[in-house]
Amino acid sequence: MSIDQYFNEIVSNVDKEIFSYLKGDTKDLYEASLYLLKAGGKRLRPLILVASSDLVGGERTRAYKAAAAVEVLHNFTLIHDDIMDQDTLRRGKPTVHVVWGVPTAILAGDLLHAKAFEILNDALRGLDGERYFWALSTFSRSVIVISEGQAMDMEFEKRADVTEAEYVEMIKRKTAQLFACSSALGGIVGGGDRGAVEKLYSFGMDLGISFQIVDDILGLTADERELGKPVYSDVREGKKTILVIKALEMASDKERKIILEGLGSKDSEKVRAAAEIIKSLSLDYAYDMAERYLDRALKSLNSIEGKSEIAGMALKYLAEFTVKRRK
Amino acid sequence: MSIDQYFNEIVSNVDKEIFSYLKGDTKDLYEASLYLLKAGGKRLRPLILVASSDLVGGERTRAYKAAAAVEVLHNFTLIHDDIMDQDTLRRGKPTVHVVWGVPTAILAGDLLHAKAFEILNDALRGLDGERYFWALSTFSRSVIVISEGQAMDMEFEKRADVTEAEYVEMIKRKTAQLFACSSALGGIVGGGDRGAVEKLYSFGMDLGISFQIVDDILGLTADERELGKPVYSDVREGKKTILVIKALEMASDKERKIILEGLGSKDSEKVRAAAEIIKSLSLDYAYDMAERYLDRALKSLNSIEGKSEIAGMALKYLAEFTVKRRK
Repeated sequence: MSIDQYFNEIVSNVDKEIFSYLKGDTKDLYEASLYLLKAGGKRLRPLILVASSDLVGGERTRAYKAAAAVEVLHNFTLIHDDIMDQDTLRRGKPTVHVVWGVPTAILAGDLLHAKAFEILNDALRGLDGERYFWALSTFSRSVIVISEGQAMDMEFEKRADVTEAEYVEMIKRKTAQLFACSSALGGIVGGGDRGAVEKLYSFGMDLGISFQIVDDILGLTADERELGKPVYSDVREGKKTILVIKALEMASDKERKIILEGLGSKDSEKVRAAAEIIKSLSLDYAYDMAERYLDRALKSLNSIEGKSEIAGMALKYLAEFTVKRRK
Repeated sequence: MSIDQYFNEIVSNVDKEIFSYLKGDTKDLYEASLYLLKAGGKRLRPLILVASSDLVGGERTRAYKAAAAVEVLHNFTLIHDDIMDQDTLRRGKPTVHVVWGVPTAILAGDLLHAKAFEILNDALRGLDGERYFWALSTFSRSVIVISEGQAMDMEFEKRADVTEAEYVEMIKRKTAQLFACSSALGGIVGGGDRGAVEKLYSFGMDLGISFQIVDDILGLTADERELGKPVYSDVREGKKTILVIKALEMASDKERKIILEGLGSKDSEKVRAAAEIIKSLSLDYAYDMAERYLDRALKSLNSIEGKSEIAGMALKYLAEFTVKRRK
């Protein structure tokens, strides 16, 4: 079986699970909840979860459901984040609150949030009480940590003195936590022992950090069509990405002034000027950093005694993909 | 022990649980999440949950935690509902989104939603897998149903032809479901059997329907200071309460015109005129309806062979209170 076939089989089964759960008689609400899930997405987290379960020798029925739960949860956070950040485009389409209005978008996110727990609960049925507790505490803790990360991200918009350490802590919570949750949960529902699950957690965490750094890079370098959302939106929103933080550190007084004028500006010329300087000062540094976390992720992965060769290859492929991807 | 002492002991223990969970280093987010919980509230759902657990002979440690989960969940829905309905006052204080802005209010709700599952998971630790599943599916299903109820409530604002049956279905989901969840969950974590839990569920459902009808009545009859929120806000928002539905059914053409002009109006004189007519046409009918559901609730309660006399008295008291209360 090729890696492509391996991935396709997972995605089609996880999608089947997802769509089987998102049915109800309140039509607008369910359409709004489904919209982003139907608009595409790479299904990275489900792939990581199922491959992690395979790696420890788990069975697929549980893994597909748990993966569906994680993807549904992820989509809830995207819908709410887009409201909070006032983003109007995602996956090449107008965001949920643009199409249905803020109230229905809030509710659609809430519904997906609750559905994620419903699906996970079904995934866990039949497990013994302690593993049940372990899986659910990993999952609920992750949602809490993700909310904290989003709060930090918003708070950083108001500050110009965010440090690299603060940035790493923020993206660990906002982004990497759900990757770590995916790989760990795969290990837990797959029947892995404490040691394997801890290594899977570290793998997901470092992969997730790497993923977010590359996301920040792509926000400055990709074109809008590839990205599915406007370029430079991070600069326009005053986000303190690692590129901004590093650029502010390296900038001359004149450059610093241009960067600060562009951050959070509504003037697209000022935004563009800031973005150009940020790129010139910090792109290499950010790529190096992403590679460093990728190496750490792969080290964790290699330390696991896997029960499936293709699962190991798939996880390695996914980790490398996060750094190499162009969208 | 008096009923008052019985209630006070529960509230103080549940509050202790709630506040022990709502701590974190993202200061604004946690303050926004705690604000409404600290502003008061009757803690009706926790009281129902713990008394239901007592009734089937459950132990308190689990019940307090499960009750904390339900109250935290309830507060999440209030914060998000206030954003969706653009309400500016609750429990006599400006709403969360008025104080912290919409983005932080959305996030505070999301945090409480996730925390509710974390707390419930802790409440269930040590139970066997099947009871674990039962409790969690009851809880997650409730959040889903509540979201659907809120969607119906918002959709009804746009319609003038909502029927009584549609109204009852909507308040079952939006309001009564969480009462049913509270009493049922009390039975589940308390070790009750299927039969007892089903009766507790029916008790909570009918009590919740009665509660919402009285809430709709108080929205037209209570004064703002007692209510903690502006009077007539339901009319101003165009809500299709049972009073509006019944009044539209009974109204003369002239009265009907005044009611329809007041519903969803920004003109406070038109709102007041509509409210006066609505009250005159439907108040008795609504109170009768609330009494009818209260009777059904008490019938379910009486059919349970309880293991605690004071718990039975407390549940009866709470049910009667929902109809007699003035705020």
